[in-house]
Amino acid sequence: MVKAIEWIDGKVIMLDQSKLPFEVTFIECTDYRKVAEGIKKLWIRGAPAIGIAAAMGTALGAQDIKAGNFNEFMEALEPTFNELLSTRPTGVNIRWAMERVRSFLMRRRDEPVDRLKKLLIEEAKRILEEDIEVNKAIGRWGAEFIKDGDTILTHCNAGSLATGGYGTATAPIFAAKEQGKRFEVFVDETRPVLQGARLTTWELMQEGIPVTLIVDNAAGTLMKMRKIDLIIVGTDRTARNGDVANKIGTYTLAVLCKEHKIPFYVAAPLSSIDFSIASGEGIPIEERGPEEVTHISGRGDSIQIAPDGVRVRNIAFDITPHRYVTAIITEKGVFRPRDLKKLIRDDVNLEKLRIRPAAILSCNREPRRSYKTSSRGR
Amino acid sequence: MVKAIEWIDGKVIMLDQSKLPFEVTFIECTDYRKVAEGIKKLWIRGAPAIGIAAAMGTALGAQDIKAGNFNEFMEALEPTFNELLSTRPTGVNIRWAMERVRSFLMRRRDEPVDRLKKLLIEEAKRILEEDIEVNKAIGRWGAEFIKDGDTILTHCNAGSLATGGYGTATAPIFAAKEQGKRFEVFVDETRPVLQGARLTTWELMQEGIPVTLIVDNAAGTLMKMRKIDLIIVGTDRTARNGDVANKIGTYTLAVLCKEHKIPFYVAAPLSSIDFSIASGEGIPIEERGPEEVTHISGRGDSIQIAPDGVRVRNIAFDITPHRYVTAIITEKGVFRPRDLKKLIRDDVNLEKLRIRPAAILSCNREPRRSYKTSSRGR
Repeated sequence: MVKAIEWIDGKVIMLDQSKLPFEVTFIECTDYRKVAEGIKKLWIRGAPAIGIAAAMGTALGAQDIKAGNFNEFMEALEPTFNELLSTRPTGVNIRWAMERVRSFLMRRRDEPVDRLKKLLIEEAKRILEEDIEVNKAIGRWGAEFIKDGDTILTHCNAGSLATGGYGTATAPIFAAKEQGKRFEVFVDETRPVLQGARLTTWELMQEGIPVTLIVDNAAGTLMKMRKIDLIIVGTDRTARNGDVANKIGTYTLAVLCKEHKIPFYVAAPLSSIDFSIASGEGIPIEERGPEEVTHISGRGDSIQIAPDGVRVRNIAFDITPHRYVTAIITEKGVFRPRDLKKLIRDDVNLEKLRIRPAAILSCNREPRRSYKTSSRGR
Repeated sequence: MVKAIEWIDGKVIMLDQSKLPFEVTFIECTDYRKVAEGIKKLWIRGAPAIGIAAAMGTALGAQDIKAGNFNEFMEALEPTFNELLSTRPTGVNIRWAMERVRSFLMRRRDEPVDRLKKLLIEEAKRILEEDIEVNKAIGRWGAEFIKDGDTILTHCNAGSLATGGYGTATAPIFAAKEQGKRFEVFVDETRPVLQGARLTTWELMQEGIPVTLIVDNAAGTLMKMRKIDLIIVGTDRTARNGDVANKIGTYTLAVLCKEHKIPFYVAAPLSSIDFSIASGEGIPIEERGPEEVTHISGRGDSIQIAPDGVRVRNIAFDITPHRYVTAIITEKGVFRPRDLKKLIRDDVNLEKLRIRPAAILSCNREPRRSYKTSSRGR
């Protein structure tokens, strides 16, 4: 399985995703500044992955510190925290990772400095391992909803590359593959930044999964042709009512799924569900500069595709209201969006809240499976 | 107004669209072979425009012919017909233009050869003028459906560049501008070939129309934000039941319009309505090679954006079933899709069949206009 980031022999090894899919280059970081550079320059991207990178960067930064006691150690570590936090100011996961590391240290203020340095490495590695465990659990729950012979559509990259490993939207795909299921995956190219075309195709091809690239415009007609059985996407942030913020284009896919009675799943680790936000209206939507639209990067270069001076509106994410979401796949099970808010209750009965594949199949009133089988000849 | 093709002083002048929007270069054709090369190399594209080019190419070819009588003249003209027909074998409009020119000549078999050569030039110019007249009529009918303050979304290029002038989908936009209406246009970039980003933005900017470029993925969320009031697209071919074949992505827009109760208009000259075809199922859908998806052309170059060897499905057009089409704008008026088939009846009462803007407004049950006005502050 592709690894976006690892800790090996006292170094952080980062796959340079800015060169994918044309060059597979690993960058060895022996200094926290190199890790920060990697986050800034998008050698590593994806919310969980940059959280892990920030934790590993801190551990790396700690190794060079000369300090006589805990307070001196923490003070010397401050520039590391600050530089990593400044790399992607809006990155929720970097802040989360820095807070976790800081409170981890605070609880161990009586340990000698040399011991703290070692513990910090262990904690960073644990953050990576926990992320993989969460994703594997998403995979186990989600794979139940993939049937033999299915064609799955995914959007953007919520794969191994965006996480510690295994991915979120891709986790059910990898798990279904391990279970020996036969299926195909269609990947939307995902303009403007083309994470689908550049990253998701590549990482699924590495695992020998049959993958077909399409332009975003083709998803609708493929659904009408009954070539898509289900959609799985990731999420940047999901509100407690189940409204999903994700890469631009996700909402369009959800509307198309409703129109064609195709299940629309969102793979969301619990850490991406923001229980403090009541609905999608509370999630700020980033609008970015025009260059991502007017210029396209590819193998070795970037080219201009639109007239000089054209006005552009580049909305980076969209909100899919919960009523379009069939189910949300978490590490604790698969739930109806409306049940998400119950997950934080002390008396929650997960077993009762979880939904089973049979509940989804009965939603599809049209005889999709038999149609599909008879049109397989192409 | 931008002119894709003109006949000036015995020459065919063609705007080289393959270099747009970065270079505005005109190619002078003094030989029919140059015209054929232009159609082949996509210096000129768009169904009506290449029909006009083929007619002008024939007129050009005729001038060099030395023939003593009508039969010798027609025989000598055969290679010109054949070469032009072979440029884009599936181009319905080239065949249509060649048949029109041939039957025009057959009806004048008694004229002297020198006179036929002159008449042929006049006929080619008439084909261009008639196309512009048709488009202007589409513009007049369609502009009634554009209100002051509207934002219009269009897809691909069904503009001046694709026709003799004025365009089809753009005609109501140009007419509304001439009527002094204030409005904005959003243009979908239209992957894979990016006709929206490269051509439609450019030609609307030439006319001083406020235009904003978006990626195809952004249309859905803009509709949810109530930033789009109506959609106008062109069509490559429309069946007599009103099912519309057009550039890939059109169907997705139509589904989004239904979901958001936004009118979805198709500008279709009667020549693009194929009354011999009962429904969209009878329209063959072209699938093209993978390079349009894996590589993108831009200023001066083309770059690769997907992994080597990735499997691609590149469906060039889609069918929008008539139930998603609010109305079809023709040169004879604006009609419900279900009424198209009545247009060829001898006893048709056009006035009775035509629909008025008031009929559309009453379809939008939600108070869209007042909402729009109050959110104009951005």
